[in-house]
Amino acid sequence: MDRYLIISADCHAGLPDAEYAEYLDPKYQEAFDDDRKQRTEMRRQMATATGQDENEFVNQWYADNDERLRGGWDAAQRDAELDADGVAGEVIFPDADAVRGGASAPFGAGLGLSGQADPELSMAGARAHNRWLAELCRESPNRRIGLAIVPILHDIDGAVAEIRRAHESGLRGIMIPVLWDPYPAYHDARYDPIWAVCQELDLPLHTHTGPAPREDYGGNLGIYGAETIWWTARPMWFLLWSGVFERFPGLKFAVTEGGCWWAADMLWKWDAIYDREHATKKMSRIAPALSMRPSEYFDRNVWIGASTTRRREIARRHEIGIGNIMWGNDFPHPEGTWPNTRAWLRDTFWDCPVEDARRMLGDNAAEVYGLDVDALAPLVEKIGPTPEDLGQTADVDLSKWDAVAAAGRHWLTDREAVPVPPGADGGGGPA
Amino acid sequence: MDRYLIISADCHAGLPDAEYAEYLDPKYQEAFDDDRKQRTEMRRQMATATGQDENEFVNQWYADNDERLRGGWDAAQRDAELDADGVAGEVIFPDADAVRGGASAPFGAGLGLSGQADPELSMAGARAHNRWLAELCRESPNRRIGLAIVPILHDIDGAVAEIRRAHESGLRGIMIPVLWDPYPAYHDARYDPIWAVCQELDLPLHTHTGPAPREDYGGNLGIYGAETIWWTARPMWFLLWSGVFERFPGLKFAVTEGGCWWAADMLWKWDAIYDREHATKKMSRIAPALSMRPSEYFDRNVWIGASTTRRREIARRHEIGIGNIMWGNDFPHPEGTWPNTRAWLRDTFWDCPVEDARRMLGDNAAEVYGLDVDALAPLVEKIGPTPEDLGQTADVDLSKWDAVAAAGRHWLTDREAVPVPPGADGGGGPA
Repeated sequence: MDRYLIISADCHAGLPDAEYAEYLDPKYQEAFDDDRKQRTEMRRQMATATGQDENEFVNQWYADNDERLRGGWDAAQRDAELDADGVAGEVIFPDADAVRGGASAPFGAGLGLSGQADPELSMAGARAHNRWLAELCRESPNRRIGLAIVPILHDIDGAVAEIRRAHESGLRGIMIPVLWDPYPAYHDARYDPIWAVCQELDLPLHTHTGPAPREDYGGNLGIYGAETIWWTARPMWFLLWSGVFERFPGLKFAVTEGGCWWAADMLWKWDAIYDREHATKKMSRIAPALSMRPSEYFDRNVWIGASTTRRREIARRHEIGIGNIMWGNDFPHPEGTWPNTRAWLRDTFWDCPVEDARRMLGDNAAEVYGLDVDALAPLVEKIGPTPEDLGQTADVDLSKWDAVAAAGRHWLTDREAVPVPPGADGGGGPA
Repeated sequence: MDRYLIISADCHAGLPDAEYAEYLDPKYQEAFDDDRKQRTEMRRQMATATGQDENEFVNQWYADNDERLRGGWDAAQRDAELDADGVAGEVIFPDADAVRGGASAPFGAGLGLSGQADPELSMAGARAHNRWLAELCRESPNRRIGLAIVPILHDIDGAVAEIRRAHESGLRGIMIPVLWDPYPAYHDARYDPIWAVCQELDLPLHTHTGPAPREDYGGNLGIYGAETIWWTARPMWFLLWSGVFERFPGLKFAVTEGGCWWAADMLWKWDAIYDREHATKKMSRIAPALSMRPSEYFDRNVWIGASTTRRREIARRHEIGIGNIMWGNDFPHPEGTWPNTRAWLRDTFWDCPVEDARRMLGDNAAEVYGLDVDALAPLVEKIGPTPEDLGQTADVDLSKWDAVAAAGRHWLTDREAVPVPPGADGGGGPA
């Protein structure tokens, strides 16, 4: 059987903080040293305040993976880890260490990128990371899709220049801030030059889970967990509903590491709004800029970097869109499937048809990022799991999917009473 | 067959603006006149800007229902309309006219109640509405559950006093602002006296769809539609995750007119966070204030005023919680089921087991608001639809629900691959 081309649409890489110095413009060196000291102290305080110091899972994680975590920045170690996981290609976000920090883009320009940070330092930090990342990717351009960090809020021209520079250097997508405050929201036409250059250069835009209005939460992590995906996805729906995908039909947008569970109901609801279903008949000019249904833009312009997909999510793939879901192992973060990806895949996909699994596990990403699949073939031949490895054997009854597959998004196909088999998650991952 | 006790958990009542004058403290009369002039002008401009003037559905709605819309404030007309709809009891929110305005609590103290408004005038407007509403409810206390508008943000003691006064006057629940900005968020202990008095007097708290950070949308109604439910529900999850329901176990909270489609995935995700499922193992002290799973607080303390429930939502009742869903006709708003409720109910519930439908259509609300069901029985005998009226006849195959009913919330029962039959909505309501 053909082995799977597995692409992780959610990986992370970052240099140990201090080593970013050599990639930073010299004039920011002093600010860099000060900033590092402050961040180190802040992290120490935070670890104590949140009880992270006593978190056994975290401590065990670092003890178990000490050497292997060098893969966050070391190319050879990284390849060894990805090989072991069966992952042939990867999309690379910043910040290798999402627990203790310490391998993050300078000046907080990584996942936490926001409009609240100093504009000049954010760009300096982003550029330093982007330079290093381009080097990392240059060593194996077929395997690695590096994403440039781009602070697009304060200086549009500067952002466009950095996007062109990053593209020139070999990076293949960009990550934008999740929170725009205090700048205008993403429906604003001031951002059009950003969308234009990304469409021109075929660079997918990304938001990644992390930022949220934490000042609202009073230190309560539960509230953060409860709503964080809505902040990650919000930029996407501002673009969609304000007609950015209408004006830039080739633009690609990926919402990453918030799962894909949230998309099915959203699409149902959004199409109903657009179609002026009963509840919205009283509203006028709901979406004057859109010529298609929200689900149509979603299928053409939006992907979900769903990371460690759960069985409940995979069971709903026909509504979410099999073509929109991109799996990821979140290497090297502890909330991902690494270093147990092979077991996770088996646990999640054993009763998923192979052709569906192929798309979600790699083929969608290959298309979105324009991967050279032929160039990756020898690697896939060596490390890729087979359908049998995933438990997708001939004796698995796949007929249970027939009705949901036929219905697809039932509000568009008008098929009534379709059985949708979700799957219990048990909260776990492989036993 | 026993007729249904139908309670609408989402109705609206408001006096024609000018008539609120006699319920207002005399010292605010001048401000009231000024405010009315401004609002009338603002509404006129808005209607033109949004194209509402040319909205055929809206114009037809007013043409068809001219006289009947007096039911927004006139008790006799109101009873006639509810009778015709088969609705025996109702929960009453402010603002009778949600399209053109004109029957709204003074000083914008109605559905749009927010922290941005003038504190003193908000309270004056709320009190005027609450006084009038208590009169309306006094005429048929078994049928009408009036909700007091309470601006709880700026003056906690004043809010507590108004809650006690409103309760004394016969009102049976309170509506709080959806948006707290610029005041502290609802996890803050400063609001504890509010929660305490509501628990003491058994007054359910409510948020109602409407408010959202519209200044973010650049006039784009689609963005508003896409995310408005998250703003309506957000206060509920701030209370839940910060332990307010732990400290006030008798507190009741209803999230109204955002449908109930959003709750199933939310509960799945939230329980996973609380249970420290793989993705949240790295986090420490996620919910130190909670002794139970989010879904357990949800079942004990939270209800959804789901209004005009859709087939897709009813099909998912076992995950959302049959005991948490309260139907509503949204009388007299055009996005509701009035004046065609009987047809809507048949269209939505024909294949729902009678015992499930009874809870969602009335019994849950009767329990939440402590309705005197016996006192309502003669009215129900006269106007309530029968199961047969709803198409719930013996030839409907109900076995399709067996598996989903047995699985319930599958992440808790650990039942795998349960068939969940949703239903196509077709975007419509009854043909």
